[in-house]
Amino acid sequence: MSWVDDPAFTADAPFGPQTLPYGVLAGHGVAVRLGDHALPLRGLSLGERLAPLVAGPSLDALLAAGRPAWSELRARLGELVTSRAAPRGAALVGLDDAVLPFTVADYVDFYSSRHHAENVGRIFRPDGDALTPNWTHLPIGYHGRAGTVVVSGTPVTRPNGQRRTSGGPVFGPSGRLDVEAEVGFVCGGPVATRLSPSRAVEHVFGVVLVNDWSARDIQAWEYQPLGPFLGKSFATSVSAWITPLEAFAVARVTPPPLPNPVLPYLVEDHPWGLDIDIEVEWNGEVVSRPPFREMSWTFAQQLAHLSVNGATVRPGDLIASGTVSGPDRAERGSFLELSWGGKESIALGGGERTFLEDGDTVRITATAPGEGGSVVGLAEVVGTIAPAVAGVGVGTGVEG
Amino acid sequence: MSWVDDPAFTADAPFGPQTLPYGVLAGHGVAVRLGDHALPLRGLSLGERLAPLVAGPSLDALLAAGRPAWSELRARLGELVTSRAAPRGAALVGLDDAVLPFTVADYVDFYSSRHHAENVGRIFRPDGDALTPNWTHLPIGYHGRAGTVVVSGTPVTRPNGQRRTSGGPVFGPSGRLDVEAEVGFVCGGPVATRLSPSRAVEHVFGVVLVNDWSARDIQAWEYQPLGPFLGKSFATSVSAWITPLEAFAVARVTPPPLPNPVLPYLVEDHPWGLDIDIEVEWNGEVVSRPPFREMSWTFAQQLAHLSVNGATVRPGDLIASGTVSGPDRAERGSFLELSWGGKESIALGGGERTFLEDGDTVRITATAPGEGGSVVGLAEVVGTIAPAVAGVGVGTGVEG
Repeated sequence: MSWVDDPAFTADAPFGPQTLPYGVLAGHGVAVRLGDHALPLRGLSLGERLAPLVAGPSLDALLAAGRPAWSELRARLGELVTSRAAPRGAALVGLDDAVLPFTVADYVDFYSSRHHAENVGRIFRPDGDALTPNWTHLPIGYHGRAGTVVVSGTPVTRPNGQRRTSGGPVFGPSGRLDVEAEVGFVCGGPVATRLSPSRAVEHVFGVVLVNDWSARDIQAWEYQPLGPFLGKSFATSVSAWITPLEAFAVARVTPPPLPNPVLPYLVEDHPWGLDIDIEVEWNGEVVSRPPFREMSWTFAQQLAHLSVNGATVRPGDLIASGTVSGPDRAERGSFLELSWGGKESIALGGGERTFLEDGDTVRITATAPGEGGSVVGLAEVVGTIAPAVAGVGVGTGVEG
Repeated sequence: MSWVDDPAFTADAPFGPQTLPYGVLAGHGVAVRLGDHALPLRGLSLGERLAPLVAGPSLDALLAAGRPAWSELRARLGELVTSRAAPRGAALVGLDDAVLPFTVADYVDFYSSRHHAENVGRIFRPDGDALTPNWTHLPIGYHGRAGTVVVSGTPVTRPNGQRRTSGGPVFGPSGRLDVEAEVGFVCGGPVATRLSPSRAVEHVFGVVLVNDWSARDIQAWEYQPLGPFLGKSFATSVSAWITPLEAFAVARVTPPPLPNPVLPYLVEDHPWGLDIDIEVEWNGEVVSRPPFREMSWTFAQQLAHLSVNGATVRPGDLIASGTVSGPDRAERGSFLELSWGGKESIALGGGERTFLEDGDTVRITATAPGEGGSVVGLAEVVGTIAPAVAGVGVGTGVEG
């Protein structure tokens, strides 16, 4: 029996020794999550090679170190946390005060769920084709705002912005504030470009959940011709704990086939997605269970595509999957889809809802199958909606 | 007469004492440009407050310091470089080995030239309205890839990618490689949000030229519905030297009016753009002279817009204007416009051209009026096209 005194640190709970996600706690630095506790790493005897990678105020040095170091550290921690006696310097702490654990370099958001893309196409272009013609040939994506990626738990202030009315555009709080339940891949290793899908995996450190909050009214007015901007850039929430990609070794599944062959640079010999079950809770009620196994484009194809033109992949790049939606209504990963563009109400708390109201809390959780029947967890991403700020244009200091 | 022994360090040359742009030289660190030389700052006696801001390997600390420090340093350097005797520790060096002088946080590219937007609309949607309905109500923009912003002089490798043909998409080198001549604003000061246009100016450190290289065939196939991605993300070149915003005090001009009132958060009491004359040289021949004074949306409005939803503005954010085009043919800032979608040839070197060929060099330069009849320079942004890489998908290391 392990020295770790936490009943949630077991193989049938999401954050047992099969998972070992990394995060950063204010005042403690880099830590590994064990059940409902965290083990700060800077006091442990990890050796000359590994210790400097976790000594800083973030995971940045570890991300840059690359796959061999990641594997070595994970193996070493696996030994330490399952030993009978606590290693020297080990002291469990609570999970509070988790901060954004890495410096987000570039943030790219894809659009890789066919069900989501078809739903959105049908809602916005009821008379046209559900999918744009490029969708089955390339993983569509766009750059988001790295500077507003925030850690789970950060309140999300309802954005102000322009929206269209029959009398012209008006300014004010978004009335169609939405979620997007996504899975994110945190990149690391040497800076590289023109990755094949099979090499892309070497540049993924771990996996997080992402809520790409979206103001649908702002987005609808602004997005032609250059894509989403202020409808997305106010906040993107990510898990505080990054589950290493290695923890998903037995969660690999074959993705659903595309209807046409893809070009050679996107071909994988043995393509695999991840069998992640997601739950979206709205004010404590589960309103959707999006299945990540339904995604058509894999993260390996996404990285191959985004770097095929010579663009580099850097440590800290965050690659989000796009909204995860399954074929069933109860598997849709956005309220835009669950409410079919606001036309169908969603039963919630004995009432009926479409988009987010102030004070609402959305919590996204997920698990995947682990070795030997265990459960691998992705850390929750949670956010509560704060009212819009009045008196915009006067400036709000963020620091100090 | 100044101790600076450089005939280009005069008020009627672009990099005289009226300009004093900042850059970073490999091996020398932060420097100020004086004519065709540079003065490294780390050996100078700048005092306890200023010295640490220029002691690091980039301008990042200076960007973060904010307007009062920027003004103080500029005033101090103005004294040092115009004194009769060389200050202790001063040693001029050449301009070679300039590196990207700051860490690009988020890169946003706007679309603020009405002439450019109308030209592109007419080329791509000949039967529709030239402008999308939102264009006159908000400064349209999108996030670009911060990780592939490169310093002037960096070769630009022709990107591979997907393009549409009548037989379906094919993969290969872009055949419609283009330039976009733009002006970029480098942000600094405290992290802030919900800026009014009048406060936005406090968050702009200085000005660079930008060439937002664009692969029009890749862009045309990918950009619906989420905007440009791989057609732009392979490289964005910026000047090696950042001209401080303070140098443009007498270059302020009233921008052309929009046809409708803008919403209050975008209203400026005394809106101003900058009277910057740009020249685009293609293989040594000037092919266009885009006038920046023709831009409809100001950088103050761009910053007010991008932060009105709660998005933060951070030191290192790069705000590009979008392609600068004037009303005349000889003032168009892209070859897409100069060749009208590839249909009209451009006279060059005794021949006729449309888009870029391997080996072509594009050099963008610009000046603005300075105090007392002087000339304020923006440092050139230059790039030469290298052939596309064969055998994509095998991976190319960037480091080591």
